[in-house]
Amino acid sequence: MSGGVPLAGLTAGNHGRRLEAGEIADYLRSRPGLARFAPSGRELSVREVGDGNLNLVFVVRSEPDRPGVVLKQSLPYVRSMGESWPLTLERAAAEARAFEAYTRFAPELLPAWYGYDPDRHVLAMEDLADLRVWRAALNDGEVHLAAAAAIGRLVGRIAFHTSDFGTEAKARKALLAGSVNPELCEITEDLVFTEPLVDHEHNHWPPGVTGLVRELQRDPRLRTEFAELKHRFMTHGEALIHGDLHTGSVMVGGGRAVVIDLEFSFYGPVGFDLGMFWANAVFAAARAERLGRDAVFRGHVDRILAESWAAFVTELRGLWPTRVDRFFDDTFLERYLAATWTDALGYAAAEAIRRTVGYAHISDLDSLPEPARSSAAEAVLRVARWLALERRGIDSPGAAWSVVREEVER
Amino acid sequence: MSGGVPLAGLTAGNHGRRLEAGEIADYLRSRPGLARFAPSGRELSVREVGDGNLNLVFVVRSEPDRPGVVLKQSLPYVRSMGESWPLTLERAAAEARAFEAYTRFAPELLPAWYGYDPDRHVLAMEDLADLRVWRAALNDGEVHLAAAAAIGRLVGRIAFHTSDFGTEAKARKALLAGSVNPELCEITEDLVFTEPLVDHEHNHWPPGVTGLVRELQRDPRLRTEFAELKHRFMTHGEALIHGDLHTGSVMVGGGRAVVIDLEFSFYGPVGFDLGMFWANAVFAAARAERLGRDAVFRGHVDRILAESWAAFVTELRGLWPTRVDRFFDDTFLERYLAATWTDALGYAAAEAIRRTVGYAHISDLDSLPEPARSSAAEAVLRVARWLALERRGIDSPGAAWSVVREEVER
Repeated sequence: MSGGVPLAGLTAGNHGRRLEAGEIADYLRSRPGLARFAPSGRELSVREVGDGNLNLVFVVRSEPDRPGVVLKQSLPYVRSMGESWPLTLERAAAEARAFEAYTRFAPELLPAWYGYDPDRHVLAMEDLADLRVWRAALNDGEVHLAAAAAIGRLVGRIAFHTSDFGTEAKARKALLAGSVNPELCEITEDLVFTEPLVDHEHNHWPPGVTGLVRELQRDPRLRTEFAELKHRFMTHGEALIHGDLHTGSVMVGGGRAVVIDLEFSFYGPVGFDLGMFWANAVFAAARAERLGRDAVFRGHVDRILAESWAAFVTELRGLWPTRVDRFFDDTFLERYLAATWTDALGYAAAEAIRRTVGYAHISDLDSLPEPARSSAAEAVLRVARWLALERRGIDSPGAAWSVVREEVER
Repeated sequence: MSGGVPLAGLTAGNHGRRLEAGEIADYLRSRPGLARFAPSGRELSVREVGDGNLNLVFVVRSEPDRPGVVLKQSLPYVRSMGESWPLTLERAAAEARAFEAYTRFAPELLPAWYGYDPDRHVLAMEDLADLRVWRAALNDGEVHLAAAAAIGRLVGRIAFHTSDFGTEAKARKALLAGSVNPELCEITEDLVFTEPLVDHEHNHWPPGVTGLVRELQRDPRLRTEFAELKHRFMTHGEALIHGDLHTGSVMVGGGRAVVIDLEFSFYGPVGFDLGMFWANAVFAAARAERLGRDAVFRGHVDRILAESWAAFVTELRGLWPTRVDRFFDDTFLERYLAATWTDALGYAAAEAIRRTVGYAHISDLDSLPEPARSSAAEAVLRVARWLALERRGIDSPGAAWSVVREEVER
């Protein structure tokens, strides 16, 4: 790994080849702007920390206690499924595109961006040394006061700047065409919308909710709502949404909150990001209740939906006077916000159900002992059904959250 | 023009060069599948018949009374504006793409398709010798009984096959990305939605409606509806819509009805095609009333909206059992139809106003003498305002058309 050794693994024949810890110093030295993370003569510490299913994630440091760089490499299959579920590597390019767009408009809400290597499908970004995954922090009862508003602000910022509000129509259409992400969208279409409501081998759930799950799967009203939500997800190309904005895609700490994992990004409905995020607040609330967390933490969780929505609205209203197409009037903005709110409640329902019933669960609930796990899952599913069926009549964050509280305290 | 002369005008240096009548025989002989339209030793009859703004259209025959071939060449500017309004030639490729997709799913509802020359931007298609433009036929009081249903059937067929109903999601996204049409969409965004409701140098209208036009332009409710319709047009990528489906884009005769002029095609809201078409039925009704057409013709026009809507619904319901994604349930289809209906009424309003107030008028009204022209325009504008503002409460074709009748008879 010293500088004098010929660079290994960087020929065209290595296109997409898996990064090995032992080659990372040479790799960094070969990439523009990254050599500073591998000073010559110093041993690098390399930790692979990927906990997702789709990627390798290396934290690389030249001094163990000081931030270095993170390298994220896409794998050509879903990791937990082995090589039986192949996945295009184009998602790395999709993530890089989104990283660049998001960094342009909201640099303070992402890790610093160091660029993309299309040959090895490697993204380089800030080592968020002092931050941790928000889901883990919530699971531990940590309070991060500014995080909810940061997420709302980010979604609002992106909803404005990457849509026909902030980008001239022709440029926006080019962005849309360049951001189709068929394979990762298909994962969402299947795993979030379809599978949880049908009999599918991917599905599993806590033992105490089997009856309720069957009820949901047999409810034709829920099916129609999910069909509509899925159709909107597939057809409404409003803005370059994150596409996977749960609390596991947020890092918090030191007063910062940043989003990561943008590989699901594409032109979709803005309400999808908000709704997925809100469902994760419901999980946190259900868990906090079961664990008897103190009032400070529960109050914190109780404010996530309202604070993020308020920040989203404030951001959009603040940017509105700078819109490129002034034909969109102020009353239209209010209508757009109302439609996004209703959409988001529906997408919250879809995320809540799929994380309880479908393929990918979340640690918030799964790490609870029984019967707490089943009872938390039941609360989540009841909230989800109500949100999906009644969302058009829910007129405020307070109205939405009062039902969440009622169900989690049941 | 004999076969022995070296082919002129076909080198790479002639990319996009305007077709001249004198070179058409050689041109046809050089193109795959088109030589049969220029048998050697025979003088060709070549007529340029383009009445649009964007293209040259040649009808080419080797025998004057027998159908030959039509060549349509895109010009790099809007014809009526001279070279001051340049336009991309990519629209020819967009039209060719749409022609191929439409021909695949509804060959009987288009001219026979003979292919595209990307070098000269020339589309080759059937010479519809015995057919005429439907708008002209309606202007003359001709009855073409099957035409309305044919249009509804076409829109339904395309709405199914090019959407997530008929095309597998990944393939559909590739189609969407390949069908962005920024420049022609921009024309619609400006001319159909924005300009008619603001002060714009393009606007002009019959003298008798100045007060009403000012009322419409000052009505904040109408502005918000148009903003929403424009936003949906820009973001709802449902199916490969025609994008310019007025009665001037339909040819009728001999029991046939076919659509032409697909250059505005892109992935947009299906209701746009239906609504634009319906507005043209309103123009025909207003004209027929002013000219005192007989009951047979007026009855024919009165049924256009209902018949096309019924055919659209029948087509979609008929294809529904073959949908590729069976997660979309029957109740969702009914909801989709209802949403498309409401959309279409809004887009009918936009087309009605822009054809009366905006840049591009229609002969239906403009060829009427005053004061008939102004009074027909007033009826159209009143219908449009009502449709735009009340569309969410209009529950059937009968309910919609009864107000049309009331206004045109006023």
